Amino acid sequence: MKYALAIEYDGRAFAGWQIQPDQRTVQGEVQAAVSRMAGHEVKVQAAGRTDAGVHASGQIAHFETDAARPLTAWVRGVNSFLPDGVAVRWAREVPEAFHSRFSATARHYRYLLLNHPVRPALWAGRVGWMHSALDLDAFRQAGSLLLGTHDFSSFRAAECQAKTPVKTLRKVELTQFGTMLAIDFSADAFLHHMVRNLMGALLHVAKGNERPEWILEALGWRDRKLAPPTFMPDGLYLAGVSYPEEFGLASEPDPRFGLI
Amino acid sequence: MKYALAIEYDGRAFAGWQIQPDQRTVQGEVQAAVSRMAGHEVKVQAAGRTDAGVHASGQIAHFETDAARPLTAWVRGVNSFLPDGVAVRWAREVPEAFHSRFSATARHYRYLLLNHPVRPALWAGRVGWMHSALDLDAFRQAGSLLLGTHDFSSFRAAECQAKTPVKTLRKVELTQFGTMLAIDFSADAFLHHMVRNLMGALLHVAKGNERPEWILEALGWRDRKLAPPTFMPDGLYLAGVSYPEEFGLASEPDPRFGLI
Repeated sequence: MKYALAIEYDGRAFAGWQIQPDQRTVQGEVQAAVSRMAGHEVKVQAAGRTDAGVHASGQIAHFETDAARPLTAWVRGVNSFLPDGVAVRWAREVPEAFHSRFSATARHYRYLLLNHPVRPALWAGRVGWMHSALDLDAFRQAGSLLLGTHDFSSFRAAECQAKTPVKTLRKVELTQFGTMLAIDFSADAFLHHMVRNLMGALLHVAKGNERPEWILEALGWRDRKLAPPTFMPDGLYLAGVSYPEEFGLASEPDPRFGLI
Repeated sequence: MKYALAIEYDGRAFAGWQIQPDQRTVQGEVQAAVSRMAGHEVKVQAAGRTDAGVHASGQIAHFETDAARPLTAWVRGVNSFLPDGVAVRWAREVPEAFHSRFSATARHYRYLLLNHPVRPALWAGRVGWMHSALDLDAFRQAGSLLLGTHDFSSFRAAECQAKTPVKTLRKVELTQFGTMLAIDFSADAFLHHMVRNLMGALLHVAKGNERPEWILEALGWRDRKLAPPTFMPDGLYLAGVSYPEEFGLASEPDPRFGLI
């Protein structure tokens, strides 16, 4: 049988998703906990390999097992074997054809940004921070110019292993909650560091350094070295993953992780 | 000159507010940072001595100094000397007569409670958790019965040093944000563990163990040993402190720390 899991984690507690020797990783912890519940070694694969310090409220993963267990065993049972900063939110049985990464049709990221002169304390490590005044309309205008299918090489990390830099950006939406900003990004897939690189460029515009139209110029360079720096990971959350309806998985991001 | 500070902190990072030998405390960190900025040893006193694991978004403290510094020195300057989990939000000059604790006319606490079958991961240590279904109307009814001036001995920790157990509870207000509940408590002052003890009793009602009216019975016992257990500190925040208008300090809790 194949199961899908929705997983929530605090990126500060782990050296990213992907298992690495001598490092505490989310994949490592989840695989160990699921294997213990299954009674045999299980491989757990995820939709997106988040970096160190990047959080998830809706990472989706899958695994295969012959162990017959009620669904709650894969949620509450597995959670009892997991450390504080990570938890399985739900588990569902999925068809053999399902693959958390290759079946995904869209990924949803949210960036939380505190725009305030004073640095965060309660939210340290859980939000990005920008003390300068921001032109939110300029941010939104520049964001909307990026929508559609483009070569995003200007926003792609050198280490990126994606086959193509061409991606379809479907949403860049900024919502303001007082001094806290939530920016939602959706695309078919994202390049390595793409959201953090887009944030760096959009904030460059919002700080008044360039006009919104400049973002198209930056996109046209197709060169990471010319674009503004990668923004900090602290406020980045993998909020959800969409799949074709036949798999019966909820595709909407769950707002439970923070701002509502 | 006398200054008031608003301080935000993550209670997980400290052994409570009050300075103690060989412990990392909020008072210890803030005193050291303010002293460094002032260039002489400074004593920093707060409105409320929060316990280990209890957070603050609006703790108010004061100190005296002859050092002439712009206000930003007491905010951004002091913050540069403080560790990640604590920050000064603002500083104001206050009249000689001001005392963060003795001038306070009301304290405001907020309890964040996740009501969901699955334990929190991103919010671990920052919210209380209750997996059982809750009757929110019963919670609200019981809460409103507690409003007014009463002997709160049933909700007072044995170690409490307050002169009298008689306090005036002015607000118990529950707001629902999906699976997250925010419960706001305001009173002239609170006994030791009073909010956590009230939460324990109100949740006892909300879980259906007793009718809302039972809370008056529990209040009437004036005996802590008979009332339900103290609820976990994780979701508790000192959100603000009110002072007479003459001191010119904003008395409204700031929502920046979490749910909006």
